[in-house]
Amino acid sequence: MPDDLSWLFESTTRPERGLFFTRNSGADPRMGDIAARTADAYASADVVLLGCPQDEGVRRNGGRPGAAAAPDAIRDRLYRLVAIPGVRLLDLGDTILGESLEETHDRQRRIVAQLIRDGKRVIALGGGNDLSYPDCAGLATAAGGDLLAFNLDTHFDVREDTPRNSGTPYRQLIEERFLGRGQLVELGHQPFAVARSHRDYLERHGAQVHALSTWRAGGVVATVEGILADSRSQAIFWGLDMDVVRASDAPGVSAPSPTGLTAEEICALAEAIGGEPRTRVLEITEVCPAFDLDMRTSRLAALVIWHALSASAAR
Amino acid sequence: MPDDLSWLFESTTRPERGLFFTRNSGADPRMGDIAARTADAYASADVVLLGCPQDEGVRRNGGRPGAAAAPDAIRDRLYRLVAIPGVRLLDLGDTILGESLEETHDRQRRIVAQLIRDGKRVIALGGGNDLSYPDCAGLATAAGGDLLAFNLDTHFDVREDTPRNSGTPYRQLIEERFLGRGQLVELGHQPFAVARSHRDYLERHGAQVHALSTWRAGGVVATVEGILADSRSQAIFWGLDMDVVRASDAPGVSAPSPTGLTAEEICALAEAIGGEPRTRVLEITEVCPAFDLDMRTSRLAALVIWHALSASAAR
Amino acid sequence: MPDDLSWLFESTTRPERGLFFTRNSGADPRMGDIAARTADAYASADVVLLGCPQDEGVRRNGGRPGAAAAPDAIRDRLYRLVAIPGVRLLDLGDTILGESLEETHDRQRRIVAQLIRDGKRVIALGGGNDLSYPDCAGLATAAGGDLLAFNLDTHFDVREDTPRNSGTPYRQLIEERFLGRGQLVELGHQPFAVARSHRDYLERHGAQVHALSTWRAGGVVATVEGILADSRSQAIFWGLDMDVVRASDAPGVSAPSPTGLTAEEICALAEAIGGEPRTRVLEITEVCPAFDLDMRTSRLAALVIWHALSASAAR
Repeated sequence: MPDDLSWLFESTTRPERGLFFTRNSGADPRMGDIAARTADAYASADVVLLGCPQDEGVRRNGGRPGAAAAPDAIRDRLYRLVAIPGVRLLDLGDTILGESLEETHDRQRRIVAQLIRDGKRVIALGGGNDLSYPDCAGLATAAGGDLLAFNLDTHFDVREDTPRNSGTPYRQLIEERFLGRGQLVELGHQPFAVARSHRDYLERHGAQVHALSTWRAGGVVATVEGILADSRSQAIFWGLDMDVVRASDAPGVSAPSPTGLTAEEICALAEAIGGEPRTRVLEITEVCPAFDLDMRTSRLAALVIWHALSASAAR
Repeated sequence: MPDDLSWLFESTTRPERGLFFTRNSGADPRMGDIAARTADAYASADVVLLGCPQDEGVRRNGGRPGAAAAPDAIRDRLYRLVAIPGVRLLDLGDTILGESLEETHDRQRRIVAQLIRDGKRVIALGGGNDLSYPDCAGLATAAGGDLLAFNLDTHFDVREDTPRNSGTPYRQLIEERFLGRGQLVELGHQPFAVARSHRDYLERHGAQVHALSTWRAGGVVATVEGILADSRSQAIFWGLDMDVVRASDAPGVSAPSPTGLTAEEICALAEAIGGEPRTRVLEITEVCPAFDLDMRTSRLAALVIWHALSASAAR
Repeated sequence: MPDDLSWLFESTTRPERGLFFTRNSGADPRMGDIAARTADAYASADVVLLGCPQDEGVRRNGGRPGAAAAPDAIRDRLYRLVAIPGVRLLDLGDTILGESLEETHDRQRRIVAQLIRDGKRVIALGGGNDLSYPDCAGLATAAGGDLLAFNLDTHFDVREDTPRNSGTPYRQLIEERFLGRGQLVELGHQPFAVARSHRDYLERHGAQVHALSTWRAGGVVATVEGILADSRSQAIFWGLDMDVVRASDAPGVSAPSPTGLTAEEICALAEAIGGEPRTRVLEITEVCPAFDLDMRTSRLAALVIWHALSASAAR
């Protein structure tokens, strides 16, 4: 095994075998039948799934912990879905947590950068939304800075708090120059959830900002396709905070909102994300199984991944 | 009492009196005030409600048991709704279960066939989706085979498993020649939930297949009306697996899906079903009260019945 | 303190300080930072929030108790939302309950009348829907009878029951001549939930009646704007029974319905309500925290208030 690959496997823990569902039926293969879990499969994999099971950033932000349990809950649901022909998916497992959130972020960022350098597309499962900092920074490092980042979220996540928390990642990315003018798109915020001062901050730094209402009025998919058509960036980062979906469809999140995208809308968007050739990282954060209802939110997160992979394979 | 009628009453158990809600108010009659429960009312009844309180087929399919409790949960909610003038509804009670699922199915099929021969419309409450086998076969027997069957479901339910389970009924109906080419309409499946091999099976056997997305794109009611207009069948079977409704509106099912029909869509469809003169059986399966939230799914199943009866009475 | 003001504060109890959320951040002020709770702020306040924490009327109507806990649950969620610039909101607290529902209603009515006479807009939080009787009567008294009342509800609430309960308020208002011909608009009822005799009663007394389906077909906001444009009344009462919202978006109500307005529709309507200069009372009833899911219904009630206040401030 090359050193780089050894390092990737040493920095992560393997998912439980029991998560890889099977019906033991050639007539009905499932995602759990095709997701590879071995170092051997790395070279041929085109998509790598990586979890980061922590919610320290949510705690620091005064939120409800629980997102640490999300990666395995989402895997549990994803691997029961029907297998997609042509998808080569490697599940690298979970990033081994550091002593501090900062140390965890450093490791996560290096792993993501390595995966990108190896030509993989990455599906990153949080954890809290603080993860967007290392995930997007990792992509920016590996992709040479030529990227476009989407924050699909009810909140802006540009808080000025220190130390960093689940509400600060996009401010960190701006302040540390990973995202320059025009490189951040904030989609889906709702006015009762965002401070005026944070909106001003985004405007000063040249972010594109579309509230949920205007986003929807322009068409959830059409608006995104328009932004993609206007961008020459060669690497796209998608940060999906599941709280952008309304509480009835995504009850198990750290901070639910009664209004938001529907399950159908986020799945349609997932197809656009998977179908976009420049997509490099799809990150799903803030799923909180402890507050979920019958795993509804984990099921939806699994569908988002499935639709993205399906569109990617059909490309 | 004629022998046939004695046999019907001996093959079924009476619903608890307490389920028949009343406000004891002539100004505000409820369904529980008009639903007859006596043999005397059989001759004049035009609709017969019949439960089958078992979930053995769900267990065999590796699913979550609980659907056995559905008939009484749905009755509890149905009988609280406002009475519909002109409806003559007899609640025959529940089919007495056999020693095996197969024996239960045999009895259910004979009961349904008898009801159809007596000119009744049948509302059949599962139980697991395996019930579609005896319900549809019973109709086919009594109606001389000239029927059209709709499976409204996220799944195809044409599994090749033996023994039979909640995932096999429509394959059984095809293999046993109850449903020939053009006689089965599969509506509402979602791609992450159906195997390629099962889709191929349906195509080989001449079923009409519409995914949820294409069904909706053509209009949920308009698509069905178009299919009805094209069909010369004189007897229509409707198999409604409640998991075709999205989890937020129907959380209490054996296998919930975050995406699916809305409560409004299924109620509008129920009106089309009730308003269609050729409708003979409306079957509702897979409601699972143990996983329900404040009886939301049982409430919705009751509304489906209410809207169908209301449209039927208005015809 | 003037006598009238002393009386208002003596007739009500102060909300717990802990309900007034703050992040202690000038960059991120919340509603809890701007809601005044002092007698001093009364003169300058333009909106007064008033709770009535009782569910005796629900009990009398055979419903599920629990609405008594709603005012504080809604406050808890409202005060976490982002502060609206320009809003001067005083939270008067909760009406002190009487020995009987009738006594509580008398006090509530006198408080509302006083607030209206002092030029305030009132946000009244139930409690059961019986509250519409004193709230609307209080407005009618203070406004000289020139009012238009909206009942946004799955039910008509014109039951003939005695003693009064949560299903009788609009009949009381009609019988006691607070609402004459053309002064009551019933919006959002569903046919399975309303008795024929009650519909006849409303027609005899000249109420405008729009079922949910026809309301929606005409546009939820557009229909209301049309009614407002046709009315010369100078004072508008809005009685919002949260069960007009579908159960997936408002699970925590006394009598949930699987079908109903969406969270988005009720928030859009709230903006129309807040933006209408003649709006005097916005009453929210029937929230039942004991049956709620992760406070989803209280969150939605808070959003309704927020959107109304926001549109009011933008006027």
